[in-house]
Amino acid sequence: MKNVIGNNLSVTLFGESHGKGIGAVLDGVPSGVKIDYDIIARMMQQRKAAGTISTGRREDDIPEFLSGIKDGYTEGTPIAFVIPNKNVHSSDYNALKNIARPGHADYAGHVKYRGYEDASGGGHFSGRLTAPLVVCGAICICMLQEKGITIGTHISKMMHIEDRPFDEKHLEQDIALCNAKTFSVLDEKKGEQMIALIEDARNHMDSVGGVLDTAITGLCAGVGEPEFDSVESCLAHALFSIPACKGVEFGSGFDFSNMYGSAANDAFCMHGKEIITKTNHNGGINGGITNGMPIRFKTVFKPTPSIAQLQKTVNFQTKENVDVEIHGRHDPAVIHRARVVVDAMSAITVADLLITRFGSVYFGGEKQ
Amino acid sequence: MKNVIGNNLSVTLFGESHGKGIGAVLDGVPSGVKIDYDIIARMMQQRKAAGTISTGRREDDIPEFLSGIKDGYTEGTPIAFVIPNKNVHSSDYNALKNIARPGHADYAGHVKYRGYEDASGGGHFSGRLTAPLVVCGAICICMLQEKGITIGTHISKMMHIEDRPFDEKHLEQDIALCNAKTFSVLDEKKGEQMIALIEDARNHMDSVGGVLDTAITGLCAGVGEPEFDSVESCLAHALFSIPACKGVEFGSGFDFSNMYGSAANDAFCMHGKEIITKTNHNGGINGGITNGMPIRFKTVFKPTPSIAQLQKTVNFQTKENVDVEIHGRHDPAVIHRARVVVDAMSAITVADLLITRFGSVYFGGEKQ
Amino acid sequence: MKNVIGNNLSVTLFGESHGKGIGAVLDGVPSGVKIDYDIIARMMQQRKAAGTISTGRREDDIPEFLSGIKDGYTEGTPIAFVIPNKNVHSSDYNALKNIARPGHADYAGHVKYRGYEDASGGGHFSGRLTAPLVVCGAICICMLQEKGITIGTHISKMMHIEDRPFDEKHLEQDIALCNAKTFSVLDEKKGEQMIALIEDARNHMDSVGGVLDTAITGLCAGVGEPEFDSVESCLAHALFSIPACKGVEFGSGFDFSNMYGSAANDAFCMHGKEIITKTNHNGGINGGITNGMPIRFKTVFKPTPSIAQLQKTVNFQTKENVDVEIHGRHDPAVIHRARVVVDAMSAITVADLLITRFGSVYFGGEKQ
Amino acid sequence: MKNVIGNNLSVTLFGESHGKGIGAVLDGVPSGVKIDYDIIARMMQQRKAAGTISTGRREDDIPEFLSGIKDGYTEGTPIAFVIPNKNVHSSDYNALKNIARPGHADYAGHVKYRGYEDASGGGHFSGRLTAPLVVCGAICICMLQEKGITIGTHISKMMHIEDRPFDEKHLEQDIALCNAKTFSVLDEKKGEQMIALIEDARNHMDSVGGVLDTAITGLCAGVGEPEFDSVESCLAHALFSIPACKGVEFGSGFDFSNMYGSAANDAFCMHGKEIITKTNHNGGINGGITNGMPIRFKTVFKPTPSIAQLQKTVNFQTKENVDVEIHGRHDPAVIHRARVVVDAMSAITVADLLITRFGSVYFGGEKQ
Repeated sequence: MKNVIGNNLSVTLFGESHGKGIGAVLDGVPSGVKIDYDIIARMMQQRKAAGTISTGRREDDIPEFLSGIKDGYTEGTPIAFVIPNKNVHSSDYNALKNIARPGHADYAGHVKYRGYEDASGGGHFSGRLTAPLVVCGAICICMLQEKGITIGTHISKMMHIEDRPFDEKHLEQDIALCNAKTFSVLDEKKGEQMIALIEDARNHMDSVGGVLDTAITGLCAGVGEPEFDSVESCLAHALFSIPACKGVEFGSGFDFSNMYGSAANDAFCMHGKEIITKTNHNGGINGGITNGMPIRFKTVFKPTPSIAQLQKTVNFQTKENVDVEIHGRHDPAVIHRARVVVDAMSAITVADLLITRFGSVYFGGEKQ
Repeated sequence: MKNVIGNNLSVTLFGESHGKGIGAVLDGVPSGVKIDYDIIARMMQQRKAAGTISTGRREDDIPEFLSGIKDGYTEGTPIAFVIPNKNVHSSDYNALKNIARPGHADYAGHVKYRGYEDASGGGHFSGRLTAPLVVCGAICICMLQEKGITIGTHISKMMHIEDRPFDEKHLEQDIALCNAKTFSVLDEKKGEQMIALIEDARNHMDSVGGVLDTAITGLCAGVGEPEFDSVESCLAHALFSIPACKGVEFGSGFDFSNMYGSAANDAFCMHGKEIITKTNHNGGINGGITNGMPIRFKTVFKPTPSIAQLQKTVNFQTKENVDVEIHGRHDPAVIHRARVVVDAMSAITVADLLITRFGSVYFGGEKQ
Repeated sequence: MKNVIGNNLSVTLFGESHGKGIGAVLDGVPSGVKIDYDIIARMMQQRKAAGTISTGRREDDIPEFLSGIKDGYTEGTPIAFVIPNKNVHSSDYNALKNIARPGHADYAGHVKYRGYEDASGGGHFSGRLTAPLVVCGAICICMLQEKGITIGTHISKMMHIEDRPFDEKHLEQDIALCNAKTFSVLDEKKGEQMIALIEDARNHMDSVGGVLDTAITGLCAGVGEPEFDSVESCLAHALFSIPACKGVEFGSGFDFSNMYGSAANDAFCMHGKEIITKTNHNGGINGGITNGMPIRFKTVFKPTPSIAQLQKTVNFQTKENVDVEIHGRHDPAVIHRARVVVDAMSAITVADLLITRFGSVYFGGEKQ
Repeated sequence: MKNVIGNNLSVTLFGESHGKGIGAVLDGVPSGVKIDYDIIARMMQQRKAAGTISTGRREDDIPEFLSGIKDGYTEGTPIAFVIPNKNVHSSDYNALKNIARPGHADYAGHVKYRGYEDASGGGHFSGRLTAPLVVCGAICICMLQEKGITIGTHISKMMHIEDRPFDEKHLEQDIALCNAKTFSVLDEKKGEQMIALIEDARNHMDSVGGVLDTAITGLCAGVGEPEFDSVESCLAHALFSIPACKGVEFGSGFDFSNMYGSAANDAFCMHGKEIITKTNHNGGINGGITNGMPIRFKTVFKPTPSIAQLQKTVNFQTKENVDVEIHGRHDPAVIHRARVVVDAMSAITVADLLITRFGSVYFGGEKQ
């Protein structure tokens, strides 16, 4: 439903990049969930632009909570918050009026909104809209923590550079490692190479994308629905909501096309009194339902479309071919910032699935 | 919402593999849409098992329409239909009671349904449930035809064998080529190699998966929503509903991680009075909204989990490690059957997006 | 969403009065709910036409279950069923083609469906569509029984004849009394007068309506939502789905306009360790949320619009004024049949509200 | 879905009476709708407390728009706004901690939110939450104006005092008359009597309710759905979201129980080339679908539960019977303020129904 996502836990998103403010309403959070403000601050910090590899636009991005939280606990009512837009340079965009920036939504949005869109800075399509998503996701992570569920993401690939994979035997430690880092890689040396690559792209007025690898641990078996609300369907729906995400694969994903069934099947076995699988090619999901193993998926983010090079395009008002040079403040890569948005959308989805199965009384509790 | 998908056009799916019948209710189809029964028959035929590369279970799979269609036109009311289950060999499954077949949903479903599930033949998780989806999709294709929208899918990759890509210059011809084939490949020779590979897998009591490549032409710009109901989100939600689908990528997809922004950006240009892009790395979608170019995406299907080899697993009732040999009638590959299910889910999604934008009066019309 | 109702428990309704069959898919019923077929049979019997005060159309109305139930217990998957249409006299309707029967949906439906509707016997608007609703409601009553929740309805008023009110002190006994009756009144003498009134109306080629009074006991406090999904909103949405229902009031309802706040307020008091209210003017709902007292509401049903008298109307095809005499088989009243539909829609709504709050694991259970 | 209402046009509501602010996100408004700020101001003024017959709490209640509107036109993106809470006297509520005010949601909300609710001033249950609804409704009225649809409500009854009914022959004039008044009655003398009654109630530390009568003109035939999303269902769902609303009836409503079918049926007739009905007992709706006649319904609002008299109740924390005197600032009646909330919820519902039928391109338009 347009700008609302979720079934029993929902996010309503609003705002434009150069308007008064952006924000969201997170509805359906049970009462009595303790808000860990450090998690919100950490995740917002990780999403934020920083150093030479990100946009020059700097925003504090501190959410002002309007409702739904009292004395550090959720009330059970909608949690609304606003993040003001302060550092707005709309003049950067005047020269771009009616110009379809390649790879951007300017033209598609112009047709959709019939000329009434506020296109400055990407308007409602701006990557800036991911800030409220991270706030909502951070609150959901507070809920999931109650049940011992952890989520983490690292940059697994950028061009030819590949980070080491998650260590399946010590997944929670690796997740903790990711969550402690601003530039999330497991192998620090690979991270340095990636940063050098991003800086090099910026110096050539270009940009890069990359692949993110995500793990979710501690989620019990039996969650999700066959077919339409499969865990894959729900997660993918949420993940493809993130600007620039162009692919999602679960478990072995596209590599399944290189495997025989005898290799792809995850054999079940007893681990003490617990049922586990020896391998996890299915990424913790069978028939759309969790099987108790870690949820594993990868997402790909395309290179940032805003590049300073001269590009060919059209003016969709005059219907003429034109050249465009995009000035303003842009990221030569967003992949290192996107990773925490992936965690956020995952947390929102998993929390919704759990409330759907176990009810709104599953999280939080009675006030003493 | 569990077994219902869609906003303004919805499918409610029901049935178990070994129950009385399976079926669906397709709601929201505008009145006055002419049903092309040949399209339904063609797509059902293409989904059906055939020859040595598919399951031995043979079902007529002729939908019995109960409501919503009169004199070959939709009435505007819900279209309900049932496909009876006739060729049921439940005895094949008795030996599998409480056994978690590797790669299957038996265990996950057992936890979800708390022991009350009808697991025979995969129950509600069975690939057989895709038959009603194809019927619904075929009806949606009747609607999309009114507006000149076409959809086609070919098997682009199976192990090391790759079909030639769609010819972007003659996309509609290639789509027509696919829709005329039972085993959908563009290069007939590659198709023969793939069939040989499947037969070889079957002979080794094994199975294979593959990658499907889909194109949708004729869809106007401005359809879809930013963020949550992006065209990618809606399509992925629907596609991941198909059993065995484990990955979805749009346009250049995971290959975006190998590209610079300067190469990944699709330059707009005038084509007569029309705005097009020179390349289509974004698969016809910018910022979640269609830009008027063909929609392009790939999906990966894992190898069929039912293989005749002896496999290690557990009995989830007794909580013991056991060996299992899966008899019964199974497919050494489903990729050639899945392709028409991908078309069906795509058609359902696109029709829903169009009704959301242009209303329920967009399709069909006034009776003369 | 058109022909689907409910959030976590949903009903998808289909069929036309003179088509092959009618039915529904009840989705979201937890696994392990024991189906009490006697309740289904009892409620279907009470909905059915009988004697001289109902339509001459006789249908067995035995639902054929297609999925979702095994060995008398729900599986957790969608419960689909069909009720065949056997006793169809479409010829009765030929004379009515393009005639807007007064009080009927013929004209409104004609505009909506643009001439493609199957209007025979009311088509999708027929009161016959309430049969599947009763089946769904009966299954929900099986669930509610697990938690000690009871629902009952009596005819409180027909013209000048008023039944005695529910005895608030012995509500469950009165509910049991209603549920045992085909013509549900608390005072048998009043029932005889009402039946005489209906017969008299029939003899004058006329019809009557009436007011139903419903009570739901055993529902705990804290269920429902403030504002949009208030218990009143959810129940009213479901109740106004019943053909001919034109009014819904909770507790003292329209009589609140005659009361001062000091009289209308329900004083809370301790009843042992339990919090109750001394009066129940609010019908068990405060601020949209249950307060633990019985839910109380009334619904009004208009007189059946099909009457045998000559009536003035139009032919909406030729756009001419015409006279119409409605032959065919009709009810001089539906109020005595509607009462069990009210119970059904109430049960569906309450079950959905409870699953929303307590999860899908609240009902049913683990198989032993 | 909890605090979100609507299908293709949705309102997400947030805020508590004594928190930082209240507001809403109105999503799905097409682009290019001209905002008439005078309508917003007029309706907010009419909702506001005034004179001796309303609460002493005075708030400016000027919405601060954060997104979705530019240069006086809607952009097509979510319209978010905040109304700050300024005039907050929470100390008035300290004495009421854990006290179940009779007729209020304190106890029901306490169970629902498990002790974490912010109960001051009614919290999220406060009538103050209707202010954002009025803003949303006013924007929808801007849309409906484009199509010539008008909505108006008068107080038809308060205790024994009855206003004259709407003049069916001059409905639009009567609607205009209502919309110009702060205390909406058609007969000024009856209004004076009602105001005297409210003042008298206040002087006796008591309160009154009343019945509102609403008319909607200009809505075309063919809108709405049979059964579940009948116009009655959708309107009632929205209307019962308004605090204190306890009954909704359409057309002749509960009075249908006093009528024979021959009187209740609305005869169709030609009016020039237009099809109308001679009477409008059905309130413009047949079978859940509009028939082109004015939509007519009544709503009842209970007397304000906050009265200054000493009342008996319980402390739900200590589980003891207690006496309570409610100080603070309260309304001896809300009916005259509720009327514009009824208009707002009606406008939201009708706009949603029209977008569902005719698409999101129906309102607004292309920018020149």
